[in-house]
This record gives sequence, C-alpha cells and structure tokens, in this order.
Amino acid sequence: MSLAIKDDEVDIVIGALRSDLTTFMNEWRPMFSQFHLIIVKDPDLKEELKIPEGFNLDVYGKPDIDQVVGSSTSILFSGYSCRYFGYLVSRKKYIISVDDDCLPARDPKGFLVDVVAQHISNLTNPATPFFFNTLYEPYAEGADFVRGYPFSLRGGVKCALSCGLWLNLADYDAPTQALKARQRNSRYVDAVMTVPAGSLIPISGINIAFEREAVGPALVPALKLAGEGKCRWETMEDIWSGLCVKVVCDHLGLGVKTGLPYIWRTDRGDPIASLKKEWEGVKLMEEVIPFFQSVRLPREATTVEECIVEVANAVKERLGSMDPVFARAAKAMLDWVKLWQSVGSSSSRSSAV
Amino acid sequence: MSLAIKDDEVDIVIGALRSDLTTFMNEWRPMFSQFHLIIVKDPDLKEELKIPEGFNLDVYGKPDIDQVVGSSTSILFSGYSCRYFGYLVSRKKYIISVDDDCLPARDPKGFLVDVVAQHISNLTNPATPFFFNTLYEPYAEGADFVRGYPFSLRGGVKCALSCGLWLNLADYDAPTQALKARQRNSRYVDAVMTVPAGSLIPISGINIAFEREAVGPALVPALKLAGEGKCRWETMEDIWSGLCVKVVCDHLGLGVKTGLPYIWRTDRGDPIASLKKEWEGVKLMEEVIPFFQSVRLPREATTVEECIVEVANAVKERLGSMDPVFARAAKAMLDWVKLWQSVGSSSSRSSAV
Repeated sequence: MSLAIKDDEVDIVIGALRSDLTTFMNEWRPMFSQFHLIIVKDPDLKEELKIPEGFNLDVYGKPDIDQVVGSSTSILFSGYSCRYFGYLVSRKKYIISVDDDCLPARDPKGFLVDVVAQHISNLTNPATPFFFNTLYEPYAEGADFVRGYPFSLRGGVKCALSCGLWLNLADYDAPTQALKARQRNSRYVDAVMTVPAGSLIPISGINIAFEREAVGPALVPALKLAGEGKCRWETMEDIWSGLCVKVVCDHLGLGVKTGLPYIWRTDRGDPIASLKKEWEGVKLMEEVIPFFQSVRLPREATTVEECIVEVANAVKERLGSMDPVFARAAKAMLDWVKLWQSVGSSSSRSSAV
Repeated sequence: MSLAIKDDEVDIVIGALRSDLTTFMNEWRPMFSQFHLIIVKDPDLKEELKIPEGFNLDVYGKPDIDQVVGSSTSILFSGYSCRYFGYLVSRKKYIISVDDDCLPARDPKGFLVDVVAQHISNLTNPATPFFFNTLYEPYAEGADFVRGYPFSLRGGVKCALSCGLWLNLADYDAPTQALKARQRNSRYVDAVMTVPAGSLIPISGINIAFEREAVGPALVPALKLAGEGKCRWETMEDIWSGLCVKVVCDHLGLGVKTGLPYIWRTDRGDPIASLKKEWEGVKLMEEVIPFFQSVRLPREATTVEECIVEVANAVKERLGSMDPVFARAAKAMLDWVKLWQSVGSSSSRSSAV
C-alpha cells in the first residue's frame, strides 16, 4: 500500500515498559523501518534497553524527561504514560503509537496487516461524524455512501484520531479478563468507521494514531490510578485522555475513527492479581462518564489547548471534591497544555517549527 | 442456530412487486419454511402471484387492503409500501421483512447466512446506545465490553429494530449507482453494532426486523415521491420511516442495531433511467435531515403512537410549507397511527389480542 503522505511526516512512538525490545522491533521491521521512531523508556525501568540495529530512532529516558519537563509539573511519565513524552517532543504531522506487547496481526487471508498504512489511510480520508453510514467507511475501496445519506455531508470533516483494534488478547478490564481468562478475540471485523458526534467511546491507547497538530494537546496523561501497574488493564490514563479527545473533537468538528488496523496482542500479567487494583478504575468510570456526557465547551474555545483548559476547569469544579484523583487530573491537564506550548508543539507555534 | 424464541412469535413479511416468487421462495425455503409468512401483493401488480407450495402463509392483495383500510386514508400501499400492510395485520411479536429481489447470502466460509436467526439474535440481545463499544456487539460469542466501558451501562436497553446489510448490489441511490454501475459490494463485515443514541442513520427497508409492539407504529409509509417507481433507489419511504424510528427510539430509550445479517441482492432496474427521478429524493434529504436532527419530542410522549403524532405535527409545522410531499407525509403519519389503533395492532390494545 503506498501512502498518501511522505514517510518523514510520521513518528512512531513506543513506550518501552520492558527492556528487551528485540522481538518487538524485529517483528515490526517490515512496517516500521522506513519511519522515524521515538522510543521512550519507562522511567521506572532500571535495565538498559535492548534494541536491534537498522532503525532510524531516538531514545528518551528519565534524564531527558527531567531535563525537558523539569520538576515544576504534576505530570508523571511513568508506566504507560511515558509514551506521552514522545508525543510532546515529536515534530511530525502524524503520530502512531503501539504498545510494546503487540506484534503485527494477519488478516483472514493471511496477509500481514500494515498498521502504518491503515492508520494513515484512516487519518488522511475524511471522517463522517454527523450521519451514520451503514456500509462503514464510505471512502474505502468498493464502498460508498448509502441511499439516504445527505449529499451535503458526504465531504466529511478532518479525521484527527484513528483507533485500531486487537486480535488474540483484547483490551478488557481486569474483572472481565479474570472472568474470561481463556477468552481470546479471533473476530476480524473488516471495517473502519467514524464514531458519531456526541457518542463517547472507551479509547484504548494500545494501537492508535493521530494528527499531532490537530489534537495532540488533548492526548493528555492525566488520570493516574493510585495502584496503577504495568498491565494495560490496570490503567485508565488512555480512557480518560480518550474521553477528553472525543469531547474536544465533537466541539471542534473533528472526526474519530475506530476499527482497522488490528494488532496481535500477546499475554502479559496476571489478571487475578490485577483485579484487586482495577476496581478503583471501574468505580471511577461511573463518575467520569456522566461528567463527560454532559460537559459543554464554550463557543470561544476554538483551539485544542483552550478546550482542554475548559475541560480541566470543569473537572476541578464538578469532580474535584469527589476523589483526589480528579483534582490531580485537572492539574495535570493544565500543566500539560503549558508544557505543550513551552516545548514548542503548540498548534499556534507549530508553523514556525 | 436455535432461536431464543418460539417459531410462532415471528412473521416474515414480503412485499411482492413481481408476480413470480418461485425462485425467491425456493431459495429462502431453508430459513423461512418453519415460520408464518405474510405476502402482500403490490396493488399495482396485475398478474397472479406464483408461489411454490410448502409454506405457511397468508397472501393479501388490493381487495384486502381496500377492505381493511377503506378509502378514508391518505396512505398509499403501492410499490414497496405494500409491505406496511403486512406490518399492520401481523399479530406476532417480531416482524422480519426482506425485499423480493434478495436471496440468501453466504458468509466468507461459504455457509448460508440464516437471516432469521441473526435478526432475532440482534433483537433479543440488548442494545447499547449510550456508549460505544469498540468490539461491536458485546453480547456476541467471543466478545464483551472493552476496558473503560461503564459497568452501569452494560445491561443495555431493549433492541427494537435490526437493520441488515447487502452483498452484491448495495443499497446506493441512483446517482451513485449510475456513476459506479459496475461496483458490487463484496466486503463481508462480521459485526453487529448499536447505532449510538443521537446519531441518525439512513435505514434501508431491504432487510430489516423489528419488535412489532415496541416500534411497529413508527415504521410508517409516509414519504411517497411523485415519480416513485419499482426500484429501491427510486424510493425514500424507508429512509423517512427510519428517521422516524430512530428519533422515537432515542426518545423512548430503545436501541437500533445495524450490521449482520447480510442478504444477496440481485440486480433490478436501470439506474440511468432512475437517475431522472431520484434527484427529487436527494434534494428532499437536505431539508429532511436538519429537521430530524433538531426535532425534540415532549416528555409526555411515552408511547410510539404519541411520538409519531408529535413528529407528524412538527413535520406539518416546519416542513409543510416547503414542499407538498411533506404535508402529505404528515397526514399519512397521523392516518397510520389511527389505522394501527383501529386495526388492533396498537401497543395499548395488543395484550387483549
């Protein structure tokens, strides 16, 4: 598949939560080797990273994070949140991010799924959040808008975020994972779709891509659970950031897609052990969802940064007293916007970069 | 696949727009023969129907329509609208309706798709309109709710309508069909999903199923184009009725699903000839969509009949002066509710049937 963009418009960001990336990198080589990679090492990880040769990459670790971010921030870049540092220092138009326990998947015909090409296709084709198309992505080969789809909406809007899915180990929470320990996802759904405006979605950070200048500041490492560990089902940072992104995209008239590409997710961690921690996240969601379903941004908020500041202020006001985790999240969101602007990725400054 | 319901809870309604149903019926025999069928003959069709033996069915024609409906109505049951007469006289819990130019499809493994079993599965499993699940139907085998999905929403709501899709000839409008005359849909997307609340969808009447008592009165033959013919791409009656259903379902907290099952749609008609007529429908949609996107039903409207009366009144008020077709549609909707009540299918009276 040839991309509609240049190779140097893409950064692939990998958060390294384990030291040996040999298998990961070698398996992804056919798809990743032509692009620039940003590898961010979890600051909690002590060992040296093992990375095979033959890639164009920059590695960032705790010293780099301390130097760029300093100590004047409430943001913690540990665990899965380390990848957000990569988002911060990227200067490319598109960012693709895949968890380090994922390998390339194969489609039902046995072909390797080109995760980069599919994400870029999702992002460079318009999104259609204002009316549902029953044949899914209308811009896909062999598809179109169905009868009854208004012609005035067929141009679509910019797609800002593309969320891929997972074969083998799906992205369940710890309770589900523990209850269905042997369940694996083998259903390959050959579709990309725009998530309708006004509909919230649990965005997983395992396999995503976005247009950095369009929504970068909304991908924010803000909700850090007290007992958060190094398994996906113990984290909520991506779910929170996904709710922020969706609310901001809806407000700004941008699109979010979900579906293809799939990655193959390998097993890691013990769901039973995680179960004890995860309930914190599960309980928080019951407060979080009504908030995001009802939050309305003022018309004056016209940039992503302004939108995130508005959401952060509303979080502080409406959720702050319920649980300290929310006050910390609000503070981290405000710090993130400042950081984004000072490190130079701000959309208002990016044209000068 | 064994159904979660009894066979006698289902009516299969077929609108016969052509006289020879031999191939149609024989091809569907494996799936249809154990259910009761209602065949409604297009009142414009002069020839006798040819129907093979071995089915449990009732056939209705112009004399039956005249007798039941009488002359005191604005509703025209000609063309594709004849099937609505079948909805009216059915007394079953579930109705499945398939266009007479459709044959059973095969899934990618070559197995015949059991359209009845899949529709009933869609209807008897809950719908989840208030939060998007990225792994599609969470109640499907091998699937579940993903991480971040609020537990309080995992029970779902009643699914009232199930919309299936089409292989081979997809349901495009005449302009698209004419521009891409050779395009055929070969993408089998192995998914069912709930259409999110608040999102409108172009519902096609080609391959649908619904719970009659839950939403029957909202499936209304109201928008009749002046130049409407006997090809799907020349009609808008199902699109209009679909917009009504979705608005009513959103208001009443019911769900609408789309995706599986597929049917195989065969070619019929000349898209170039239809093109001249279809623009009427295409143009009308540009007025229709903003109306349905903004219409709000009063809290007091708690039954489907009351909701349709409210929508009809709003149509008359806001669209009535734009085009006579809308005033006629509003009138037909009010007549339909009266008819539904007098013929005895009304939800308030159905328990006595």
